[in-house]
Amino acid sequence: MRNKVVLEIIRSAEIENRNFLYEVEGKEILNLLGIENEKPILSTSEEEVISVAKNLGYPVVLKIVSPNILHKSDVGGVALNLRNELEVREAYRAILKNVNTKAPRAKIKGVSVSKMAPPSIEVIIGAIRDPQFGATIMFGIGGVMVEIIRDTSFRVAPLVEEEAESMIKEIRTYKILEGTRGFPKVDVSAIVELLMCVSKIMIDYPEIGEIDLNPVIVYEKGCKTVDARFILSSAEAKHDTSILSPSDFDSILGPQSVAVVGASANTEKIGYKILKNIIDASFRGRIYPINLKADEVLGLKAYPRIIEVPDNIDVAVIVVPAATVITVIEDCVKKGVKGAVIISSGFKDVGIEGAALERKILEIARGANLRIIGPNCQGVSNPNEGFCATWPLVRNVGNVAIISQSGTIALEIPSFLARNELGYSKAVALGNKSDVDEADLISWLADDKNTKAIAVYSEGMPEGRKLMEAIRKASMRKAVIFLKGGRTEAGKRAVLAHTGSLAGRAEVFTAAVKQSGGISVKNLEELCAASKTFSTLPLPKGNKILIVTSSGGSGILASDACEDAGLTLATLPPSTVEKLRKRLPEWCIVGNPLDLTGNALSFPNLYADVLEEIYSDESVDMVLLIYGDPIQDSFKAVRSNIEKAKLAELAVVVCYLGGAEVQAKESKHFQRHGVPVFEDPSQAIVALGYLNQYKKNVLRIRSEKKQK
Amino acid sequence: MRNKVVLEIIRSAEIENRNFLYEVEGKEILNLLGIENEKPILSTSEEEVISVAKNLGYPVVLKIVSPNILHKSDVGGVALNLRNELEVREAYRAILKNVNTKAPRAKIKGVSVSKMAPPSIEVIIGAIRDPQFGATIMFGIGGVMVEIIRDTSFRVAPLVEEEAESMIKEIRTYKILEGTRGFPKVDVSAIVELLMCVSKIMIDYPEIGEIDLNPVIVYEKGCKTVDARFILSSAEAKHDTSILSPSDFDSILGPQSVAVVGASANTEKIGYKILKNIIDASFRGRIYPINLKADEVLGLKAYPRIIEVPDNIDVAVIVVPAATVITVIEDCVKKGVKGAVIISSGFKDVGIEGAALERKILEIARGANLRIIGPNCQGVSNPNEGFCATWPLVRNVGNVAIISQSGTIALEIPSFLARNELGYSKAVALGNKSDVDEADLISWLADDKNTKAIAVYSEGMPEGRKLMEAIRKASMRKAVIFLKGGRTEAGKRAVLAHTGSLAGRAEVFTAAVKQSGGISVKNLEELCAASKTFSTLPLPKGNKILIVTSSGGSGILASDACEDAGLTLATLPPSTVEKLRKRLPEWCIVGNPLDLTGNALSFPNLYADVLEEIYSDESVDMVLLIYGDPIQDSFKAVRSNIEKAKLAELAVVVCYLGGAEVQAKESKHFQRHGVPVFEDPSQAIVALGYLNQYKKNVLRIRSEKKQK
Repeated sequence: MRNKVVLEIIRSAEIENRNFLYEVEGKEILNLLGIENEKPILSTSEEEVISVAKNLGYPVVLKIVSPNILHKSDVGGVALNLRNELEVREAYRAILKNVNTKAPRAKIKGVSVSKMAPPSIEVIIGAIRDPQFGATIMFGIGGVMVEIIRDTSFRVAPLVEEEAESMIKEIRTYKILEGTRGFPKVDVSAIVELLMCVSKIMIDYPEIGEIDLNPVIVYEKGCKTVDARFILSSAEAKHDTSILSPSDFDSILGPQSVAVVGASANTEKIGYKILKNIIDASFRGRIYPINLKADEVLGLKAYPRIIEVPDNIDVAVIVVPAATVITVIEDCVKKGVKGAVIISSGFKDVGIEGAALERKILEIARGANLRIIGPNCQGVSNPNEGFCATWPLVRNVGNVAIISQSGTIALEIPSFLARNELGYSKAVALGNKSDVDEADLISWLADDKNTKAIAVYSEGMPEGRKLMEAIRKASMRKAVIFLKGGRTEAGKRAVLAHTGSLAGRAEVFTAAVKQSGGISVKNLEELCAASKTFSTLPLPKGNKILIVTSSGGSGILASDACEDAGLTLATLPPSTVEKLRKRLPEWCIVGNPLDLTGNALSFPNLYADVLEEIYSDESVDMVLLIYGDPIQDSFKAVRSNIEKAKLAELAVVVCYLGGAEVQAKESKHFQRHGVPVFEDPSQAIVALGYLNQYKKNVLRIRSEKKQK
Repeated sequence: MRNKVVLEIIRSAEIENRNFLYEVEGKEILNLLGIENEKPILSTSEEEVISVAKNLGYPVVLKIVSPNILHKSDVGGVALNLRNELEVREAYRAILKNVNTKAPRAKIKGVSVSKMAPPSIEVIIGAIRDPQFGATIMFGIGGVMVEIIRDTSFRVAPLVEEEAESMIKEIRTYKILEGTRGFPKVDVSAIVELLMCVSKIMIDYPEIGEIDLNPVIVYEKGCKTVDARFILSSAEAKHDTSILSPSDFDSILGPQSVAVVGASANTEKIGYKILKNIIDASFRGRIYPINLKADEVLGLKAYPRIIEVPDNIDVAVIVVPAATVITVIEDCVKKGVKGAVIISSGFKDVGIEGAALERKILEIARGANLRIIGPNCQGVSNPNEGFCATWPLVRNVGNVAIISQSGTIALEIPSFLARNELGYSKAVALGNKSDVDEADLISWLADDKNTKAIAVYSEGMPEGRKLMEAIRKASMRKAVIFLKGGRTEAGKRAVLAHTGSLAGRAEVFTAAVKQSGGISVKNLEELCAASKTFSTLPLPKGNKILIVTSSGGSGILASDACEDAGLTLATLPPSTVEKLRKRLPEWCIVGNPLDLTGNALSFPNLYADVLEEIYSDESVDMVLLIYGDPIQDSFKAVRSNIEKAKLAELAVVVCYLGGAEVQAKESKHFQRHGVPVFEDPSQAIVALGYLNQYKKNVLRIRSEKKQK
């Protein structure tokens, strides 16, 4: 529902060729949308200013009003805290003089007078149209916190009230609003109301490009918007509607037949490596090497062109030079191929000409329902089907799906999982993403029975709304774990050199992922660690952890890591403490960490004893077992208990360190049986922290769905 | 040099049984020590207050003065910004009324009047006597920054000017003082002067326990101390003098003969494991099992008591129950043993009685020059001498020495180094640290030729000054890398349960380590990664890094990590860019990261080509080579270049990922030849960041030495 008066205000600015609204207009819009608000009064002469000020009551604020002046303070066009007629008069004259000096060509509409808001805590509410996600709302506490510490929070609009509240609470300096240290406790609900209103404006009025309410002064009851800047959109607003359509990659990731276009017998060529890996991975379907000159490659009959193959082709993996790809794609269309995985580089990655070529290929493909992965990508792999159209060949089957803009990362995670006795369900390297993107695959994988967690490396995605919808869909059923490349300025410059992909503001990206139910991690190691954890563990009921250790120091390091990870050390109830004291030898320190001490070296059963006592204890949601010594048979001793823990929805992880060869052997046992093992206590805590975050996400999304 | 007037001021408070100084006294002290400063004027009647205010000029500030009131605002005893006689009169009456209500028993000396300082940026300067490090100075920007964001910096006194300046600059909000965003650029040198003065007071006047100058208002020129609170010491000041004395551990860590007291043939016992490991490690000296009942243990002749061994004993490793340790120590003294490594627990770690026993043992030992490691420790190891009086047995000889309060961590780092084709020179588990502590060992290891880097895990150390002196001594020659356990409240509670060691304020500990030239890391993984890096690499000339990669995404992740690690991406000069463009194939993107692209899969020599062009390029101090594919012969291709890079003081590290079996093989080659390899690009950057930090530390300490 668009308000006619609001539209008139916008229209009048457009007519004047003004790209911003006057403060009085911005405040009028807020009023029209239900945010009560004293508007400044425009006055056109000294005497009028004085009489208005008198009527309003001192102190007052004067501000210049001009269609040519957006930043009023910069030209000396603002005077605050004027306490009597004399001060108002002097200020009025000074403002006109300043503006006349600093902006001599500006048309002056007059000077606005408003009552000075009494001081209190100042916050900033902003809104932008992010190039990836569209309308996005920002919140922060005024001054230093936003400008120097960058303590801000973001949410993609439209907001629901819970999100508005959570974005206020998630800033680091939230305590200020709660009335700590001499600050008044302020009216958070008034901020929520204003955030909701700003969100509504951004959604309903695409003509408005940017809003800056700065400062908003918040009181114990209510708040006042002191300055309101509305900037009109320079281009048409986009991305605010979602365009996720169902994608079917069944026959691309699990084809009956595959053609390798550019297959080669030269072991140095990618066309060799891919064909070899498809063969070595024991692909269940039919394989057709395509090579202009050879009759046979790696023992398989070869064809000069894809159209000459006497069989249906589900997928073409293309490794020929960029210039010839277009012909191959035309052949694919003729042949009715469903998917083309274009490994070849030389497209958007090399500049304008390449980008044009890429667009042309996409046009041809879109007209024929041919989906394209790449170009400039490292291929795809599905170990369940023995379909490895990439390199290196990693065979381990498991339940983690990987989607990565970077080929290296797409293949590193499967290798990591293999080293940890785990496996993967799919790996897709996206490269230039001319057609298939992260969202398409996440959406498809949401329904993939072989996938329990989705690990994503992305440098950004223009269609942010589509991505959010895909994550939201998948998150209800499985964790989507995101690593964003190009977080920092240095990283962003590198992104531009790399694929020309659009690296938007990293904070907005992270906020959007979280808002949609995804998990956002800090580096590749965390992406790997989280994949491992989500691959194996049940979701915990809450964030209360018990640390059981043979190494006091390692227990301390784990405790140190809890706060940052959002976990708390469980407080065992007296009855449980009592039972544990009876059951454990007297040299055990029954606290949290529960220190079995180095004596546990010869008593691996102590860990089992502890687990026995806490399955049904509601004070514990997760357990970290630290083996800080070469403890023989550590896995055997707790094996059956770990099964029971899973049934009790108790998340159990192991940290093994200081155990030399015994450690290597025991870690393998644990991981083979679905217990993730870490070498650094704090890493184990970080991984459990993400598990807890995902649990909270799922609950939040479910409750939002119910409300709708 | 102690000032007599200052001493009189302190004395007069002591006589009055007042544990703090009046504001006027605190400001007088500052004046006496050269910090010009307007003192408040004490007035005892309404008319006097009014006349004083008139003389000073408005606006003024009134504050209650009472020997019973330290926190004046809390009782309504302060009135600010009084602008005329009427306001002063009203405020005077209100203050007296407030105090009368809220602190009816307080003796009132009067009301002080001072000129109101004009507003500007407020900072806080504080000083405490830290339980570990003694006099410690704190700095922060007033209000929210200190109280909610905890944006503070610490230095142990005495300060030198460079440190005072660096502690101002290291806070996150330093920009505020530089005149960003409408703030005035303020007089940092005035803050330095005040910090130096506070440092001097804390050093020269141990009677003063705490100073709180809050706020200090800083202007474009000079600063004003608005409130000054001096609190007297409750106990005698300690730890401010250093007590590091030279220690000789040559014959304890590299003995000619060792007795294992409590040696056992029972494979479950520690007394077995230790004897077995000493034998298996091919110890070069003589081994004597001590066992009351057996004539022989593990094929070696056993003796019932140490005094019955017909040989000199350098070290006794003691694993008998706590109660009998005292007798063993008496025997050691009789026998002239030089060191006792007490593995047995049951001392300070179990409570008051155990602590008493531990003190008794220490007394006996100190009287006889017998050094004690432990009790409640996991022993010591020196692989150079084949002396492994601990478990597990890790043999790899290398140049990293490990000192750890935790036995597990003492042995995990050698295992980690072994897994990375590296080794260690010493490992000492300190346990309860009744005698030998971190400082003793760091000081001794400073001179150890086999040690290039010292890795320390510590939960705190009461004699902080001694620790600082030891780190300072060692840092001139080798890096001392510290991981502090018990950083958070949860971690601190765990420390208390663990060894009863004193976990002081973690920020002060970290600051003291850095101030002494040490490196402070965040978790065990970083401690391991830094040990590996310092073990192998030359110190770089600066912080400018070139990233060479076959994987664009990995290059981006490395770039993202640079800012936090204090590294900057090198900007190659046009001449170098030119040379590289000529030398490399055209598909390489010559930027930073320098992207060789996935085509490097078959061209490992490209990495060598890049290195060839930059040895002598002053724009590059470090190089990260990222292999993001299974690149055969990657080590062979750059081997000779890496030798040359070392000669050119160019620090080169490798990140290998996405390379499956090839990666495992090549990583081994690199690490065997002294090139540290990481799997996560950001981890590589973090490690290089520490290398750069240490380089800066060394330069700073050298320049300080010169100044002295």
